[in-house]
Amino acid sequence: MSEIVPSDPSGSLVERLDLQPVGNGPLDGMTFTVKDNIDIAGHRTSDGSPAWRDAHAAPVHNAVCVDQLLSAGARCVGKVVADEFTYSLDGESQFFGTPRNAKAPERVPGGSSSGSAASIANGLVQFSIGTDSGGSIRVPASLCGLWGMRPSLHRISEAGVLPFMPSVSTVGVLADRFERLDAVARVLLRSGSRAVTPLKRLLLLTDALDICDGAVQEQAQIALRRVADKVGVPLEPVRFSDIAGEDLPLSDCNVKALRDMQSAEFQSTIGNWIETTKPTLGTTFTLAYGNVQRFDRIAALDSLVRCERFFEAINAFLPAGVVICFPTTPVIAPLRGSLTTLDNVLNFYDRTMTITAFSGVGRLPEISAPLLTVEGCPVGLSFAAGHYQDEFLLTAVRKMLAPAG
Amino acid sequence: MSEIVPSDPSGSLVERLDLQPVGNGPLDGMTFTVKDNIDIAGHRTSDGSPAWRDAHAAPVHNAVCVDQLLSAGARCVGKVVADEFTYSLDGESQFFGTPRNAKAPERVPGGSSSGSAASIANGLVQFSIGTDSGGSIRVPASLCGLWGMRPSLHRISEAGVLPFMPSVSTVGVLADRFERLDAVARVLLRSGSRAVTPLKRLLLLTDALDICDGAVQEQAQIALRRVADKVGVPLEPVRFSDIAGEDLPLSDCNVKALRDMQSAEFQSTIGNWIETTKPTLGTTFTLAYGNVQRFDRIAALDSLVRCERFFEAINAFLPAGVVICFPTTPVIAPLRGSLTTLDNVLNFYDRTMTITAFSGVGRLPEISAPLLTVEGCPVGLSFAAGHYQDEFLLTAVRKMLAPAG
Repeated sequence: MSEIVPSDPSGSLVERLDLQPVGNGPLDGMTFTVKDNIDIAGHRTSDGSPAWRDAHAAPVHNAVCVDQLLSAGARCVGKVVADEFTYSLDGESQFFGTPRNAKAPERVPGGSSSGSAASIANGLVQFSIGTDSGGSIRVPASLCGLWGMRPSLHRISEAGVLPFMPSVSTVGVLADRFERLDAVARVLLRSGSRAVTPLKRLLLLTDALDICDGAVQEQAQIALRRVADKVGVPLEPVRFSDIAGEDLPLSDCNVKALRDMQSAEFQSTIGNWIETTKPTLGTTFTLAYGNVQRFDRIAALDSLVRCERFFEAINAFLPAGVVICFPTTPVIAPLRGSLTTLDNVLNFYDRTMTITAFSGVGRLPEISAPLLTVEGCPVGLSFAAGHYQDEFLLTAVRKMLAPAG
Repeated sequence: MSEIVPSDPSGSLVERLDLQPVGNGPLDGMTFTVKDNIDIAGHRTSDGSPAWRDAHAAPVHNAVCVDQLLSAGARCVGKVVADEFTYSLDGESQFFGTPRNAKAPERVPGGSSSGSAASIANGLVQFSIGTDSGGSIRVPASLCGLWGMRPSLHRISEAGVLPFMPSVSTVGVLADRFERLDAVARVLLRSGSRAVTPLKRLLLLTDALDICDGAVQEQAQIALRRVADKVGVPLEPVRFSDIAGEDLPLSDCNVKALRDMQSAEFQSTIGNWIETTKPTLGTTFTLAYGNVQRFDRIAALDSLVRCERFFEAINAFLPAGVVICFPTTPVIAPLRGSLTTLDNVLNFYDRTMTITAFSGVGRLPEISAPLLTVEGCPVGLSFAAGHYQDEFLLTAVRKMLAPAG
């Protein structure tokens, strides 16, 4: 693609830019990239699809979130690769190339905010903004060894961000260090000097742990015991059935709730455009989109009701002061090119989304911390809190993970 | 316009339809209309603008909320007029005509969900769905003498609803009777059998009362005393400065918070489309849009931060069990054609939005009840509760307003 800057070792840039800060603030001196489903004035937004990009004029205004960052002192150096229509967790783009996973170059970076993660992990910038509907910030954070935050649903303005799944999608942040994640998130969240509750309880979602690879489980338990000791609160195991008040598996958050909401909403946003314009679609996306096309929203309305019930149950379990943790992904990054067989796809997606859908239905803020290493590859450890408890979560994670002494 | 059904006495129909229910449920036997910024499969969505309608293909899928209603037993009989780009509270459309205010035919119906209100008030249907960003459900409910509910921000799916102001806009309901409003809202909210707190406190937002016309103030106080007596809780006056914890006027919710968020987000949604396509625009909209064009989002970032601070303060003041009330609008409906002088426009908009912006920044559920009559014209009385306390509010309003005995 002509847009890809040839000298970019991260393979993440769709377009190199230089947007200078328009103010001073907590992000002075920081550089960032923007996932290519978030508008930059004067530059077409692709949403990971050349067909979409070519069919739409360049926006006149930046997305609101971009202006928030420029006003706070940060400088934007480029637009970066997104998976096609952001509908993937792979990070392999047929159209824009696969951004490089710096810590495991033979493996995928994870998606759909693949370029956001690669641009940081390969040293181009210090942070990036992306979006997360089913794990698209958290999965690349986990697989590339970065800090990543999916905030509470709708805490950050989505104006100028491609409408995707309005009941599910968030703008989020990836960064190389916690301090930067924290500073950027607070700018976007417009936190002000909000007071927060101290950390009172630390829960471990054991169903999530159970479906992880053995080595991920071991590493996670070691890391979490260390965290619990540091803050002096016990690590309390809980099961999803305790939270839901019914004997349900954690996978119900995905297959009987969030996934159907995603399909229903996708039909009414990008789906309408695809059906009426018949654009050129990539191979992987075409397969995935087949499920959206066949999806019967009327038959699945129970799932939408269940989303709301799970939201209620999860948040009743997570008042201010409570953090729940689990591995961000059950596995290390799959090898590039391996997500082509049905077995490999199901193993990666079903297991990963069983975990990521928990914060999805709960509309929870979740921070993935780059704390685990398995077979030399990074895996994230996630900390989540109740809906709208973003500032409490940032403060609690700082306390749990700040260097000792 | 050829689309307007000539025999429609309400002047509300853009297109007559007959979408049969696709299931049975709590809405069996009810008919409804859909504001023309909400997708109906196979029919172009105008968003109140012929230019927008002509530039966009008909959607393939209904909006998610439309399918929820059809599945619950309701039948859709038409698409109804919206103000241009839904950016108005007038209800006077240069392109689609001004729907008839059944109770005050020489007066405007209020907007932007003007057709939704008129289709109910003139007896075509029992309920309608619309949208509310700055009062577009509540104002026509108040001025036409109907029940109207703006739910908590983001409780109802917005997929298939024209993206407008993502941090502000909601899908909402208008109905002829409380029982129907309640049933429809619970379907869209996917309430299930959620338990609710009993009503403990009833607050009166006195700053809102103070800016109302004298007769509205008198009528509101009489009605509210009756409500308080009925439920046996005192009516406690509160000022916005008590809520904000600072000596601020209620108008700050509008002019120093919500209005700037609206302008910023509008620039990044419809604004981009207008700037890049230069469509034919109506006279009234062109004037209003001038403010959006000139709006400097960077200079107004403080307002976005203030939105978040007001949200926090308002919701800390409104835990479960607390209802706050105020007149929905400070005035009866203006005369048709009167909103052409700057004085009349400011008198109507600034005063009205000073009240409506309170639930806007609070992201509160608000129900406008058709309880007041001034000079023979209807005015609504509003009841609001904390963010996501929609079911509590519905239950509390039922208790407060159910016929005695």
